[in-house]
Amino acid sequence: MRLNGFDGMACSIASVMGALGDRWGALIMRDLLIGLSRYDDLRRSSGITNATLSSRLKLLELNGLIERRQYQSAPARHEYLPTNKGRELTLMMHAMREVGDRWNSSEPGGRPMRLVNRLSGHDLKLVLVDQESGERVHSADVSIQPGPSADDLMQWRLQKLTKT
Amino acid sequence: MRLNGFDGMACSIASVMGALGDRWGALIMRDLLIGLSRYDDLRRSSGITNATLSSRLKLLELNGLIERRQYQSAPARHEYLPTNKGRELTLMMHAMREVGDRWNSSEPGGRPMRLVNRLSGHDLKLVLVDQESGERVHSADVSIQPGPSADDLMQWRLQKLTKT
Repeated sequence: MRLNGFDGMACSIASVMGALGDRWGALIMRDLLIGLSRYDDLRRSSGITNATLSSRLKLLELNGLIERRQYQSAPARHEYLPTNKGRELTLMMHAMREVGDRWNSSEPGGRPMRLVNRLSGHDLKLVLVDQESGERVHSADVSIQPGPSADDLMQWRLQKLTKT
Repeated sequence: MRLNGFDGMACSIASVMGALGDRWGALIMRDLLIGLSRYDDLRRSSGITNATLSSRLKLLELNGLIERRQYQSAPARHEYLPTNKGRELTLMMHAMREVGDRWNSSEPGGRPMRLVNRLSGHDLKLVLVDQESGERVHSADVSIQPGPSADDLMQWRLQKLTKT
């Protein structure tokens, strides 16, 4: 899917932002990815209105990020589960939480939630690694290169960067 | 900053989504983080209208993610540079690109852009590591724990997860 007005490079970011819709969508997706699934639990966890929750669940389903499944009849009750596509957002959500935690680090009381290594009990963080060696790559060694489908605009953009 | 209707855990995600505004804001921030800075370059790179670009730049500045600096007078020309707070979004942008690339991998031609290790030439990817040992932690060993400021709602949420 290419969104109108977005060229190749922008497409990835536009896809993700578009699929989430807004911060309510991001928030609900986050709850689903940590393991909540029932409407009432999502409602309680997020504290958002029924109208907003319902519309964002529909949007997330329409965008292929979640599936709705009936788990009880009379009265009918549904739960919502991330699809494979939806689960691919997990690392991005961790990244978003890491940034937000850092921005809010001056708040009294510290972080409301920790992500830890079950085996060591230590906190986790996200890093970039070399796909082949698995070794950590520091920002000074990160280079942006045109990919196989780079168009003229992408070539221009990357030339621009190497000149400055 | 706490946004109305968001509790502790949600705050990080709400902060980030709110600071970016929408996908246009995310797209412009992305261009700034890879190194574009001048208005005309941002305009050309994103292909968005002047009105949208101007309003999103103002929003990003207001939210402390970028600084505006005059680099020429007569006529006055400005450039936009990420602040420290803005630069903290870099890993999240990489994560967003990784997800979007995977979602769009069926598109003809492949990725428009690659992130590579300058030293080896190999592609990069994001992983979670143990903050102490630096060793990679696989998703099965990732555990969500209440942080120092976890409130009743967070306790409820995490208990809910361990029960299911």
